[in-house]
Amino acid sequence: MGVEAFREVENPSSEVVRFHADQPLSMDAGVSIAPLSIAYQTYGRLNADKSNAILVCHALTGDQHVANIHPVTGKQGWWTTMVGPGRPIDTNRYFVICSNVIGGCMGSTGPASLNPATGQVWGLDLPVVTIRDMVRAQAMLVDHLGIEKLFCVAGGSMGGMQVLQWVASYPDRVFAALPIATASRHTAQNIAFHEVGRQAVMADPEWSGGRYAALGKHPTKGLAVARMAAHITYLSEGALQRKFGRKLQDREAPTFSFDADFQIENYLRYQGSSFVDRFDANSYLYVTRACDYFDLAADYGGVLARAFLGAKTRFCVVSFTSDWLYPTSDARAIVHALNAASLPVSFVEIETDKGHDAFLLDEPDFIATTRGFLEAAANARGLTAPAGVAAQ
Amino acid sequence: MGVEAFREVENPSSEVVRFHADQPLSMDAGVSIAPLSIAYQTYGRLNADKSNAILVCHALTGDQHVANIHPVTGKQGWWTTMVGPGRPIDTNRYFVICSNVIGGCMGSTGPASLNPATGQVWGLDLPVVTIRDMVRAQAMLVDHLGIEKLFCVAGGSMGGMQVLQWVASYPDRVFAALPIATASRHTAQNIAFHEVGRQAVMADPEWSGGRYAALGKHPTKGLAVARMAAHITYLSEGALQRKFGRKLQDREAPTFSFDADFQIENYLRYQGSSFVDRFDANSYLYVTRACDYFDLAADYGGVLARAFLGAKTRFCVVSFTSDWLYPTSDARAIVHALNAASLPVSFVEIETDKGHDAFLLDEPDFIATTRGFLEAAANARGLTAPAGVAAQ
Repeated sequence: MGVEAFREVENPSSEVVRFHADQPLSMDAGVSIAPLSIAYQTYGRLNADKSNAILVCHALTGDQHVANIHPVTGKQGWWTTMVGPGRPIDTNRYFVICSNVIGGCMGSTGPASLNPATGQVWGLDLPVVTIRDMVRAQAMLVDHLGIEKLFCVAGGSMGGMQVLQWVASYPDRVFAALPIATASRHTAQNIAFHEVGRQAVMADPEWSGGRYAALGKHPTKGLAVARMAAHITYLSEGALQRKFGRKLQDREAPTFSFDADFQIENYLRYQGSSFVDRFDANSYLYVTRACDYFDLAADYGGVLARAFLGAKTRFCVVSFTSDWLYPTSDARAIVHALNAASLPVSFVEIETDKGHDAFLLDEPDFIATTRGFLEAAANARGLTAPAGVAAQ
Repeated sequence: MGVEAFREVENPSSEVVRFHADQPLSMDAGVSIAPLSIAYQTYGRLNADKSNAILVCHALTGDQHVANIHPVTGKQGWWTTMVGPGRPIDTNRYFVICSNVIGGCMGSTGPASLNPATGQVWGLDLPVVTIRDMVRAQAMLVDHLGIEKLFCVAGGSMGGMQVLQWVASYPDRVFAALPIATASRHTAQNIAFHEVGRQAVMADPEWSGGRYAALGKHPTKGLAVARMAAHITYLSEGALQRKFGRKLQDREAPTFSFDADFQIENYLRYQGSSFVDRFDANSYLYVTRACDYFDLAADYGGVLARAFLGAKTRFCVVSFTSDWLYPTSDARAIVHALNAASLPVSFVEIETDKGHDAFLLDEPDFIATTRGFLEAAANARGLTAPAGVAAQ
């Protein structure tokens, strides 16, 4: 991580709620940790009866900076297509919350945070984090904000896993759920790609068994390779071919060398090198591990539908045709389980060649779908339309 | 590489032909190299009129040990399903040749070989090798063996690229061609995966800018990560799920750690660690680069059919339904070009969930297809059936 990112770990630009020894986080690994920090951003205003809160859950290497300028990269937030005034997650209408996951590195407790018991960076001494642990921590934040029931929980990819876990863990606290480009369990191929990434990090001698922070080392090369491998899975073969194909980078002919002759090589190298400025290597191990361990049905005797029994949450499940990381078959398995549990569910497969990352992009059909779902849900919940928008 | 593999570089267990200063290899990089070694294996007997030779071209990290015990790993050759007595490439009927590619590390000149001009290991001083260079070297070997026209050139993956290049470069010298699970050019996604592998190797400080051999270093960690990433692309999502799914490795419950809890993790780690015993890190850079540079149409004004104009070679193009590295669409592009060039071509897409690696496996439909194609071609070529097999 760069200096600015390191500063965000302990002194984030976001709001932070610090839970003390009397409010430990009970974790799936069988231990509790306390104290605990949760860094978060909010957008819009909570209404009087606290019924208009939407919790946005971020993906693997995302963070709480959904719709503001990112304090490290200086770039726009990661979901400005979806969150903002007049957007489907309309900040004129809803109170939007997004917290950095436990295990992350933007201010919530993670392996880069200081372990208060030792005064040293947690590193691998932090218990392994699960998706359920992330959601437990989010529930502590939602309690802290005095919100009994969330109007909606929404998120893509690992964020979508948190959405599913929210309904399973707190069936009475989620009115509507929007899991996007996600799965109810990691497949062998999903685990395989994550394992390659972790091995790339751990193969870097600077990683030093996870103790690089104390040693002043920086496993940036391994982390960059991990990011490059992962990045391929976020895009479709078709999108890569359309965008890059075999185009050369600033040259007329191949150099017959190992330079980045091809634009795709240059692009991947940039993805790797820019990532390491903002993300912690151990954090990458933790968030990938959380996804790999995710298998919601396993907690319910192998029957996914049982995870949703008793909930009344209305769902909109979204997948993208060219997403090969969490393909439509994964979404369909979720929908079948929701049907079996008699929950109201819309299922939309969006036609796009942009792959998994489509959920982060301005895909008109996706935007229209989520807008429609949220408007209908808001009306059902009795939420007032913002000024200038006719109630439907 | 391990000690035994290193010995194979200069003193291979195979036959070797050494071309001296008067027979340089002219390379696409614009230079020539001499002297040059080509290590090869043969199986079966060349007939009197030298019309029964089949050249087998190996894939990325394959070698000449097609159907004998491998001198380093002690395992069976890589294509015993296809090559041997009574197999489709029947060693009772055909004279089978397979040479280690230029750029490889099993006895043909490659980056691990000694550069005779310096007495030092070539390393990155070896010019970058292309598929066409590999084929030129093979043609020198075929000349050396006194064979004017090959009965067939066959190979899968990078071997299939060599098959296509053979017909383009030497249209009069190939009676039949069998390109399997291959493409006429590397796509952006293909290049991306190879670039990740190269970056993993180069990120290993032991790689030392490619000079590890002189320094007594071993970039095994980076090479293992490269192999792990590549290996995922050789298998289908379905095959991984069927074979491994989320099964745990020798344990009843997850350990909540970064150990190889899942069988797929253990399997990948094994693939990585066993690979580095037999393969040279720089060689991996060279062979991946050769594939990335491959774009047969580009040498013919962007029109693939022109690569085959004037040839009379009969083709059988084979793809596998679950191969996402070189999917059926790649095979179809080859077939369309062959059609446009008026060459006789059969095209068979084999239904299998085994992914790209299916060409190495005992897939009954694949075996039957290649058997039928080669028998018909042999009859057309007037080759005698082996004793006990009725001519058709």
